[in-house]
Amino acid sequence: MESPDQVDYLSGKTRVFGIVGDPIEQVRSPEMITAEMTSRGHDAVLVPMHVLPADFDAFLPQLLRMRNLGGLVFTIPYKARACALASELGPQARIVNAINALARDAQDRWRGEIFDGQGCVEAFRRRGIALRGKRVMLVGAGGAGSAIAAAVAFEAPASLTIFDADVARSRSLAAAVMRAVPDARVSAGALTLDGIDVLLNATPVGMLDDPRMPIEAHALPRGLVVFDAIVKPECTPLLALAERCGCTTVRGREMMRGQIARMVDFFFARG
Amino acid sequence: MESPDQVDYLSGKTRVFGIVGDPIEQVRSPEMITAEMTSRGHDAVLVPMHVLPADFDAFLPQLLRMRNLGGLVFTIPYKARACALASELGPQARIVNAINALARDAQDRWRGEIFDGQGCVEAFRRRGIALRGKRVMLVGAGGAGSAIAAAVAFEAPASLTIFDADVARSRSLAAAVMRAVPDARVSAGALTLDGIDVLLNATPVGMLDDPRMPIEAHALPRGLVVFDAIVKPECTPLLALAERCGCTTVRGREMMRGQIARMVDFFFARG
Repeated sequence: MESPDQVDYLSGKTRVFGIVGDPIEQVRSPEMITAEMTSRGHDAVLVPMHVLPADFDAFLPQLLRMRNLGGLVFTIPYKARACALASELGPQARIVNAINALARDAQDRWRGEIFDGQGCVEAFRRRGIALRGKRVMLVGAGGAGSAIAAAVAFEAPASLTIFDADVARSRSLAAAVMRAVPDARVSAGALTLDGIDVLLNATPVGMLDDPRMPIEAHALPRGLVVFDAIVKPECTPLLALAERCGCTTVRGREMMRGQIARMVDFFFARG
Repeated sequence: MESPDQVDYLSGKTRVFGIVGDPIEQVRSPEMITAEMTSRGHDAVLVPMHVLPADFDAFLPQLLRMRNLGGLVFTIPYKARACALASELGPQARIVNAINALARDAQDRWRGEIFDGQGCVEAFRRRGIALRGKRVMLVGAGGAGSAIAAAVAFEAPASLTIFDADVARSRSLAAAVMRAVPDARVSAGALTLDGIDVLLNATPVGMLDDPRMPIEAHALPRGLVVFDAIVKPECTPLLALAERCGCTTVRGREMMRGQIARMVDFFFARG
């Protein structure tokens, strides 16, 4: 078979980015973030980097010395551990004590921030749905929920109520957000739709073949906006009910796209 | 601008290779080796890795622990230093004390070998020009010349004469090749075309805008095969003269393609 002797997407000048995790084969950042970078005209690739937990602390500081490394994305199980690599943490990373992106700044130092929550906010922005002044109910105060609470708090909602089956966890998250964003009206509370404008699911309930919903309901108010952070399936049982009831819905895949856009902004800000 | 939200040449499963050097922007391996790997059906990329000399010894052993790293290519100034990373050196690497490729074997150890010379031999093989039984004159006993001497010696030429302006260097190379390949008839000697079938240039004379030739001659015997390791320009003053005289010529670019093919064999041998 005759084939071209060069590919057109790589050269010695290409800026290299990586996603660091364990396991790594399931990640989507290589194809999606590379596409976002190249569509903006950057000569850059993001490659998977499978690093074992025992190697992380010795490898990562060395990796950051690679001169043409533009930035890193962190996934399970490294979002908390990666904070130690940053010279400076962004406002949302400081609230949740975790980062999923590290970018080189103009002084060759590394800035860390978490973008899961910003992806959710960006998805709303792209759809033209304001969070400002809204009464928001967030279900789930784990990793994704924490990042979403931190990001939504900066959007000045009328209120943000956080529910988690683990009450201590939701209280602790609400307190951390309030410390960082004193103007925000954030509290831990019961799961209810009374007086709520926006419902955000950040639990894994409804993922893959799970037929359950994060809230017990047979119908939802037509004016409610319903968001689900779950990416697979694209339409979770909660979103399916919301669509049947005429609600506006925002999907996990939109959050993922929003997050990618914000991460690429961050990588190339050179701030 | 609307753009596809994924590229098709990367995923979490893609095997990662790197070329390590300083500087790095001029290297061609990313586009050429990636093309060779993908044309053979491998899901793999080779990215540039700009590592400074002060970082090499601490970074490289850590990098080799990355689980999805398939192999590394080494360029200036690391071909000699990289030997220390290999558990096992190939026969040509042992002669020249340098490697330009490191591959993971089935036992997760790292094998090192140098392919500059094998690229030259592969170029001859692809053109159907035997080196076996031929009287070969090699000009230049530096890095490229050493690797070419080591590779040609294994092809059982009738004789291999090595000339270098630095006589001690050509003698030392001839001795090293003889120790490793006792059957080979290798010697350091004067630069002559008398009784020579194949002339190999491994000096930089004739590179870029250099109008000189590595041998003083106004004509070359029509039966001579002339090879030049120089890649830029494709047709050096020596090759231009050889073509005017009706000689068969083999170009540096053919050596580069041959080397890439052999390196990819090596990366995926899993021996």
